[in-house]
Amino acid sequence: METNTPTWTLGALAEMLGGELQGLPDLPLDRPVDCASSDPRGVAFAESEEYLREAEESQVGAVILPRGMRPTSLPAIYVDQPRLAFLRLLNMARRPLPLSSGIHPSAVVAEGAEVHPDASVGPFAVVERGAVVGRGCRIYPFCYVGENCVVGEESILFPHVVLYQDVRIGARSILHAGAVLGADGFGFFWDGTRRVKVPQVGGVVLGDDCEVGAMSAIDRATAGTTTLGDGNKIDNLVQIGHNTRIGDHGAIAALTGIGGSSRLGDRVLLAGQCAVADHVTVGDDVTFAGRTAAGQDVEEPGIYLGAPARPIREASRALLLATKLPELFSRLRRLEKRFPDSP
Amino acid sequence: METNTPTWTLGALAEMLGGELQGLPDLPLDRPVDCASSDPRGVAFAESEEYLREAEESQVGAVILPRGMRPTSLPAIYVDQPRLAFLRLLNMARRPLPLSSGIHPSAVVAEGAEVHPDASVGPFAVVERGAVVGRGCRIYPFCYVGENCVVGEESILFPHVVLYQDVRIGARSILHAGAVLGADGFGFFWDGTRRVKVPQVGGVVLGDDCEVGAMSAIDRATAGTTTLGDGNKIDNLVQIGHNTRIGDHGAIAALTGIGGSSRLGDRVLLAGQCAVADHVTVGDDVTFAGRTAAGQDVEEPGIYLGAPARPIREASRALLLATKLPELFSRLRRLEKRFPDSP
Amino acid sequence: METNTPTWTLGALAEMLGGELQGLPDLPLDRPVDCASSDPRGVAFAESEEYLREAEESQVGAVILPRGMRPTSLPAIYVDQPRLAFLRLLNMARRPLPLSSGIHPSAVVAEGAEVHPDASVGPFAVVERGAVVGRGCRIYPFCYVGENCVVGEESILFPHVVLYQDVRIGARSILHAGAVLGADGFGFFWDGTRRVKVPQVGGVVLGDDCEVGAMSAIDRATAGTTTLGDGNKIDNLVQIGHNTRIGDHGAIAALTGIGGSSRLGDRVLLAGQCAVADHVTVGDDVTFAGRTAAGQDVEEPGIYLGAPARPIREASRALLLATKLPELFSRLRRLEKRFPDSP
Repeated sequence: METNTPTWTLGALAEMLGGELQGLPDLPLDRPVDCASSDPRGVAFAESEEYLREAEESQVGAVILPRGMRPTSLPAIYVDQPRLAFLRLLNMARRPLPLSSGIHPSAVVAEGAEVHPDASVGPFAVVERGAVVGRGCRIYPFCYVGENCVVGEESILFPHVVLYQDVRIGARSILHAGAVLGADGFGFFWDGTRRVKVPQVGGVVLGDDCEVGAMSAIDRATAGTTTLGDGNKIDNLVQIGHNTRIGDHGAIAALTGIGGSSRLGDRVLLAGQCAVADHVTVGDDVTFAGRTAAGQDVEEPGIYLGAPARPIREASRALLLATKLPELFSRLRRLEKRFPDSP
Repeated sequence: METNTPTWTLGALAEMLGGELQGLPDLPLDRPVDCASSDPRGVAFAESEEYLREAEESQVGAVILPRGMRPTSLPAIYVDQPRLAFLRLLNMARRPLPLSSGIHPSAVVAEGAEVHPDASVGPFAVVERGAVVGRGCRIYPFCYVGENCVVGEESILFPHVVLYQDVRIGARSILHAGAVLGADGFGFFWDGTRRVKVPQVGGVVLGDDCEVGAMSAIDRATAGTTTLGDGNKIDNLVQIGHNTRIGDHGAIAALTGIGGSSRLGDRVLLAGQCAVADHVTVGDDVTFAGRTAAGQDVEEPGIYLGAPARPIREASRALLLATKLPELFSRLRRLEKRFPDSP
Repeated sequence: METNTPTWTLGALAEMLGGELQGLPDLPLDRPVDCASSDPRGVAFAESEEYLREAEESQVGAVILPRGMRPTSLPAIYVDQPRLAFLRLLNMARRPLPLSSGIHPSAVVAEGAEVHPDASVGPFAVVERGAVVGRGCRIYPFCYVGENCVVGEESILFPHVVLYQDVRIGARSILHAGAVLGADGFGFFWDGTRRVKVPQVGGVVLGDDCEVGAMSAIDRATAGTTTLGDGNKIDNLVQIGHNTRIGDHGAIAALTGIGGSSRLGDRVLLAGQCAVADHVTVGDDVTFAGRTAAGQDVEEPGIYLGAPARPIREASRALLLATKLPELFSRLRRLEKRFPDSP
């Protein structure tokens, strides 16, 4: 059985992190926390005076500080790189959600599905015919792995993930609760009296080392595949339309919508509530600030803002000036008054 | 067994509401409806001439009117406060979704989980080790109550709710279908060639008397907890990022995104499609009109509009003037023509 | 058992489509794909030089072209209307997600529910008392068909659909994974110290031939019904508030939010991330471009843009001029300098 809580002491942590101890070495510490926590067994990190003061106010159990930081009444460990030290703590504190190895007796695995003997399939999961679940995969309860879907080695499907059909997930990818891959794209045509459905028969390909957030949707292609490369990190509640192609190592934040048949290059970074319209191309190394929308191609690397997307400097200046419209109007009116039209 | 339909008569309703009857006392009425309904057994309320006329057009079964309202051909009950009277009807018409008491035989409750004998756990629910389900809770089908999660007394999890791990729900809170609490926050760093995941090991705390809408996500903290106080009402499809803290009695409407490590005070009210960026503070008693976005702190109580958020009066004026830009340009051009640069 | 892959030959396809063949008639082709596909057994269509070039670069298996198009080295079929020919292929390539006929032994169907003998109910589905599942319906795993819900003939509920209570779905409608119909509307009032819930006791009516995308929400009415007419196509992650009424043949794209008690006419078309505020009316044949928001009634047919929504010509012009604000300010400053206030 996996242990529920790591138990450390201040002294053991200091030694492990190669840091300098201040306080009682025997102080028990159970978990990493943030500076605003008042957990007496929590250990936070603070890289600046501001965060240290927050930690002192909340009286967190202990704090990791950069060497040379001022003394504090809190138990502390002084290290070269507090952020990296904290990252090590986070890694030690990870506990996978519980899941027994093998296939849970309540799961429904169709004849003709292949589940690797080292994979775990939880209660009430459904794995359809032709599906392949790779070595070390973790399929949590209520997941639906549809016909001919492939889940690569060591990938994780949290509860309630749905893969419709012909969805291919790479290795070491993580799909959060309620993500839906392979639902029909939004394809219809108007025949004069009603909207007729264009059958959506394609698939989805998601690369290695990707992460898809809770309740995000990646639609199946009309034909062919909707394709995301390796290392893409998709946040919660993101919509990615049919036949869209995204390169490698992108990041797309919550509530962003990508239309159909769009093309995103490598390392595209979209902040929250952004939009890319249908059939639009976004080039490599393009970054969109929050709520930026591209209705036309954006090819040049750089940071963009606004709807429509423009280079952030231009867009910021126009935004600023928009707040000065009342002033602009009154200055104009003043000039007009001084020079009336018909003297 | 719970009854499916209340059955009232116009007379009984009038008496119960302390109102004055007009029409046949024996008229059967089954349910509250709105004024646009033509349900002959529905009873609506109308506080104004406009709604009364709508009710007359749709020929609803009966209507609750304020005393002094004009006569109508519809069966009617005249009361002091039609809205409050209608609220009483709504309360009488509530029917909890069916759920047998106790633990359904198909549910999977781990050893070491505690389910109060007065709680109900529906078909195909999963309750993991260390979880606690309190007195009077209603856990509907397909819910996943993860490791060490706590569901407070009389809270309701509608079908398909997912609590990952270390998620603490207060008393009398309602989580709607598909809500996901405790999924990993969107935390990565770029190591020069790829995005590396920052492990997310914290929890979520949701207070008493909260409501979380269908398919809304509240991410677990990187470390420590993402915390919402008491009385918060979250609509559908809302995203709340990791380590965010929200005070008491807030209301957040659909499709709003709150970034990570944000701080919202008490009684913050965000209309639909709003945004609060990472690390931003929004003070007590701040209201955002629809689609308002805060990229920086908004401390003063009041109503805000726009992106970036500004006091609604300023923002409305600038919005209005933005529609007059064509006029502005032509007025300027006129002046320029009259005074050419190089005479 | 349904067959997994159609197998065609180039010659058979050409004959079936009434087209002119170029290439080996025996060439095996398995599936429709898009022009960017390099699938040697895929067949794409290209209506323009641009797409034909893309197909040649990706070396797709074969391509359907309009008669008169230039020769290509790819195997090809020349037809009158490539798009219609391709639509026929799509229809032939459809494979319903697997589902055995009848009620799966693991499904929980309450006493008093009616499931038509020709309907299919998958593993772990729940059908509550009073529910009616019509002829030919396909209810996939993990669906929750709540009390007194009705699913019309030949409608499809993909995995994880939730119908709360009193939800009525017409015939031939499709609900995608995770769609939630009938969750409580967002109704509260402030009693001076806290937000009090207004019980939501109404239902939802969805017409015939509708489609609701993955994780879209249509809330139940406070009283009466939230009503969508026939032929409505709703994309993923859309929010539709309580008591809203939508006519026939609308289309609403992803991440759009419709408030409560709104009225949308027939053939309303909303692109992605649009918004309609509470109690707002949108007339027949109104189209909103992406991210348009209506805070007030929009009655006239036509295309609208912006927030607030304005006729697209006006709104586009104002948007364009907004990008010229820096120029405007400098032109004004120039005039002011030439005519200083106090000479």
